[in-house]
Amino acid sequence: MIVILKNGVQREKRDQLVDWLKEQGLGIHVSEGEFQTVLGLIGDVSNVDMELIGSLGIVDSVKRVSESFKCCNRKFHPEDTVVEVGGVKVGGGHFAMIAGPCSVESEEQIVAVAKAVKASGADMMRGGAFKPRTSPYDFQGLKATGIELLKLARAETGLPIVTEIMSVSHLPLFEDVDVIQVGARNMQNFDLLRELGKIRKPILLKRGLANTLKELLMSAEYIMAGGNEQVILCERGIRTFDDYTRNTLDLAAVPMLHELTHLPVIVDPSHATGIARLVRPMALAAAACGSDGLIIEVHNDPLHALCDGAQSLRPEEYDALARDVAVVRGVVNQ
Amino acid sequence: MIVILKNGVQREKRDQLVDWLKEQGLGIHVSEGEFQTVLGLIGDVSNVDMELIGSLGIVDSVKRVSESFKCCNRKFHPEDTVVEVGGVKVGGGHFAMIAGPCSVESEEQIVAVAKAVKASGADMMRGGAFKPRTSPYDFQGLKATGIELLKLARAETGLPIVTEIMSVSHLPLFEDVDVIQVGARNMQNFDLLRELGKIRKPILLKRGLANTLKELLMSAEYIMAGGNEQVILCERGIRTFDDYTRNTLDLAAVPMLHELTHLPVIVDPSHATGIARLVRPMALAAAACGSDGLIIEVHNDPLHALCDGAQSLRPEEYDALARDVAVVRGVVNQ
Amino acid sequence: MIVILKNGVQREKRDQLVDWLKEQGLGIHVSEGEFQTVLGLIGDVSNVDMELIGSLGIVDSVKRVSESFKCCNRKFHPEDTVVEVGGVKVGGGHFAMIAGPCSVESEEQIVAVAKAVKASGADMMRGGAFKPRTSPYDFQGLKATGIELLKLARAETGLPIVTEIMSVSHLPLFEDVDVIQVGARNMQNFDLLRELGKIRKPILLKRGLANTLKELLMSAEYIMAGGNEQVILCERGIRTFDDYTRNTLDLAAVPMLHELTHLPVIVDPSHATGIARLVRPMALAAAACGSDGLIIEVHNDPLHALCDGAQSLRPEEYDALARDVAVVRGVVNQ
Amino acid sequence: MIVILKNGVQREKRDQLVDWLKEQGLGIHVSEGEFQTVLGLIGDVSNVDMELIGSLGIVDSVKRVSESFKCCNRKFHPEDTVVEVGGVKVGGGHFAMIAGPCSVESEEQIVAVAKAVKASGADMMRGGAFKPRTSPYDFQGLKATGIELLKLARAETGLPIVTEIMSVSHLPLFEDVDVIQVGARNMQNFDLLRELGKIRKPILLKRGLANTLKELLMSAEYIMAGGNEQVILCERGIRTFDDYTRNTLDLAAVPMLHELTHLPVIVDPSHATGIARLVRPMALAAAACGSDGLIIEVHNDPLHALCDGAQSLRPEEYDALARDVAVVRGVVNQ
Repeated sequence: MIVILKNGVQREKRDQLVDWLKEQGLGIHVSEGEFQTVLGLIGDVSNVDMELIGSLGIVDSVKRVSESFKCCNRKFHPEDTVVEVGGVKVGGGHFAMIAGPCSVESEEQIVAVAKAVKASGADMMRGGAFKPRTSPYDFQGLKATGIELLKLARAETGLPIVTEIMSVSHLPLFEDVDVIQVGARNMQNFDLLRELGKIRKPILLKRGLANTLKELLMSAEYIMAGGNEQVILCERGIRTFDDYTRNTLDLAAVPMLHELTHLPVIVDPSHATGIARLVRPMALAAAACGSDGLIIEVHNDPLHALCDGAQSLRPEEYDALARDVAVVRGVVNQ
Repeated sequence: MIVILKNGVQREKRDQLVDWLKEQGLGIHVSEGEFQTVLGLIGDVSNVDMELIGSLGIVDSVKRVSESFKCCNRKFHPEDTVVEVGGVKVGGGHFAMIAGPCSVESEEQIVAVAKAVKASGADMMRGGAFKPRTSPYDFQGLKATGIELLKLARAETGLPIVTEIMSVSHLPLFEDVDVIQVGARNMQNFDLLRELGKIRKPILLKRGLANTLKELLMSAEYIMAGGNEQVILCERGIRTFDDYTRNTLDLAAVPMLHELTHLPVIVDPSHATGIARLVRPMALAAAACGSDGLIIEVHNDPLHALCDGAQSLRPEEYDALARDVAVVRGVVNQ
Repeated sequence: MIVILKNGVQREKRDQLVDWLKEQGLGIHVSEGEFQTVLGLIGDVSNVDMELIGSLGIVDSVKRVSESFKCCNRKFHPEDTVVEVGGVKVGGGHFAMIAGPCSVESEEQIVAVAKAVKASGADMMRGGAFKPRTSPYDFQGLKATGIELLKLARAETGLPIVTEIMSVSHLPLFEDVDVIQVGARNMQNFDLLRELGKIRKPILLKRGLANTLKELLMSAEYIMAGGNEQVILCERGIRTFDDYTRNTLDLAAVPMLHELTHLPVIVDPSHATGIARLVRPMALAAAACGSDGLIIEVHNDPLHALCDGAQSLRPEEYDALARDVAVVRGVVNQ
Repeated sequence: MIVILKNGVQREKRDQLVDWLKEQGLGIHVSEGEFQTVLGLIGDVSNVDMELIGSLGIVDSVKRVSESFKCCNRKFHPEDTVVEVGGVKVGGGHFAMIAGPCSVESEEQIVAVAKAVKASGADMMRGGAFKPRTSPYDFQGLKATGIELLKLARAETGLPIVTEIMSVSHLPLFEDVDVIQVGARNMQNFDLLRELGKIRKPILLKRGLANTLKELLMSAEYIMAGGNEQVILCERGIRTFDDYTRNTLDLAAVPMLHELTHLPVIVDPSHATGIARLVRPMALAAAACGSDGLIIEVHNDPLHALCDGAQSLRPEEYDALARDVAVVRGVVNQ
């Protein structure tokens, strides 16, 4: 850790700070420049409160030289993590297509969609049983029943299932789920993350609406510090001043995360844009910039078929997209 | 609800939509303008999926005419809610000063700070026992012990205590806490909100870093829909491109929330800015624009006293601020 | 235009508003719903002040049904505009690669880079002569000399030149430039836009850091309303809370703009990310989501070659990228 | 300037960088820590390209220790600048109330409003003659005529006039204007700023919608570097995800700017919120947090008087506000 002092700090104040840091068991290397003094903190700085030091009157800024994330840091694990779900692999050159409806609505619906996306080569199936809704008056999902219906669809198709958890107390219901999703709104629900670190099941961790990449990695770290190393990261759009799409899909996060971490990174173009017409171009773009997979909403609802469709694709649209994604991936990987 | 169709929609497509809406039990009033057609939906639209309709190919936009929040809506409850905590009132002309350290660290510390802020006229005491931290390696609070120390400080001073909950499973520990705080990161932890709706204890609900006022009100609605009407809202800064303060304090939210809801609205200038020097001007500004209270970090830590101090005020700084806040309030309320 | 009144507006106030609107020569269609009243304004609403009406105490909201942009609106010009520069075409299925250094530094440099990118198949050459710099103390470009050097490089290679204008008063210097670029900071320099509407030369209009797509289109409209219809739009990143890249590249803007306008849309991955390593993945993603071209920084500077390089690619990196972009385009266009 | 190298950089690469920096005439102080190496650059670093160095493969980050703004930096000019306009002073304890209509519409209107605000104690009068409008089809102001009408109102009331310039070419028309305003969209119109540095007239510089405080100060620096030291800064709201007000008023910028610079800082609550009802609370808040003045829209338009009014106050509302602002200032200054 490096502490940069303000110009013209009194020697006495500086020495008080150095003494206080030494009391915390650190070695201090003082480097006096023409214009400023820099303190290099040597030893275990993991418990040093950066914000506190940065706020001191004599300190200009503090810089952590070694990142605070360890388990997910590519520096310490240069090889890609490959997450395995049933026979499906994600990461390390393996690309996963995850598809299905926003909400599980009925056996008929989820089985039909699962069969359709399976026919188009999907690797896993998604479907919401517990739905986080802004309003307490909106449909909150079929809950336990929804999970049972997902299992039925899995039995019919063999596709592993991905579904979202909203509370630690529901964990027993997820015992037979293949991948547990943590939604954007729960990315910093630290108690939930800690509990998910205790199990041994892949976690799909979505980036929060206003969270930096470092915060996303620190949340992965909560899970991994508990011993569960099977984490898939997901970019799904951030909140900006832009109002023409629901969120702003931040695709540069994909190559940047690949630099910072060895974990697989997938993209959700459906929630990012909220507009079905934009799912195809954004899915192709995600494949082109190196994402390790896509999670896409597909429905077979007659109203949608009739008119156009919110953010969900119809099965035939998904089918065409899946083929083109494969071709783009082929080009990029050559 | 109003559905505005795109220009030049085919009559057949329009009729299909009208029929589908009627099947959902709604009356439809069709208004054809020179350039566009507007459908007025009459009846109970609370279950109508606005986003789905808005996404249809023939629809330009959808507008909910009656707000989706009810319990906290000022339209239906024109009079200010006054939340009572012990003998302390918040809202409806009653201004509450809440002060204390970021984290409870020891009996000595919390009792000393509680006595100091009590002497400066504070109405309640704050202190973190469970601390949400971005990193799993950072100090997570004294937890149950922290709550016990807060109770000791209450016994010494008589000040009601405000402290943050991070998980439904910790609820039993909060039985003897006076006000339960929901932090910014948990503003959309809907399971937690629902549980807090079942108890009868004031809730201090902080706005999330990237949440709109409507989303804040919908989260209050989760609590109130369960029957707990004692909710205090708190503006504590939002995340923007700005980087000189930790967050951007959005003070216009205070008068705007007062228009939209009857709930009290307080301001946290300490977390909003992250810089002790800015707490005083922002606290005065919050008082000037009509907030119903302030929640301010105060510490008695020697390092801070020695140098300057992160976002916390020293007791003597808090004392001077409390006096000036009272004078500004006097002016504004005349 | 549609005016939605608040619930429970007094009949008298409503009639005053209707009368006032009629005085402005509009026909008014009043539609009274169960919960709200909607006024449909019929006639020429182009001079109606939406903001003023929206601010009236009895008005809930105002909606412009016909967009305020006309010349660039795809509704009125369904076919893609193809901008021609020398023999090069942009838009309507024609993809343009524009490459060159950030700043023109010397004859040797600009000629060398021009030859290199020409050899890699670039369609046009870019290079800054007038540089907008945040600080008055930073290098402001070679100005008129820089433009002369660009012309020399054009003479050597035959590549049309693209360079940025910063002030109306410099316009005479741009007479022999092929494409005039308006930078992000000048996107709403309306006087400059108006002057560029009077000439007959292609304009490359970059999106501002905090501007919506509608604002970008309105700025194009300033140019086109003057009679200059040769406008190329450019997405180059927006400002968000994200701090790991210089800006956040908003690629969903590409397909969205293609829906809204017939103008070509290109992408600048160099300025968007500010990091050379991210230029390749973001360029491929831009090609995959349907952009009509790319503008990329390429340099031949020894320091960069030595170490790594800011946001500029080395010629050999550009060469490899150009080939892969062509392949991705081939896939997407099939 | 400090350059922090990445962990584990090869000695050879490091030496190449040190040699290259020395070639630029700098002294280099190398400090090797246990985990990282820090280079301290000694000498005149004003021409060192921070971004270029930061982008090198072996560099973790670069930090400018001495700020890049000089003329407006409080470090080098500890005393407040007091800008004088006619007999009116702004800054250094002098608070200026500037009021008037958004646009100058007619002699009758501007004279009436000027008299009204003068009666309420306003120090200066504002009014737009050249109006920056997002759409080329919207009213662009009365231009030269508008400035003549402002002068008439000045002759009637004695109030100095503040009005916005949009183009260098209009400068001759502003010869007899008292304060020239640079609008938010032109904050980085560097050519305009440079020209305004050549004149000797106070400049009111508004912060851009997505500009940091440092960028605002660098724009002031463009004016001051030319020798014109009479600059007044103005916070008028930034663009965020928030949608209930037109912009988000960032009041913490006021005390922060006072730390960074000696220039006066005023606040525009009318444009920041776009809602007349919020002007009063935000004006009081601005006074409470130490702003040096307010610029407020006031109109006498019958439609507004009739109903409610966009972002403009009626004269009687302004009158009441002006009195309360004075009282809040009295409290804060004690």
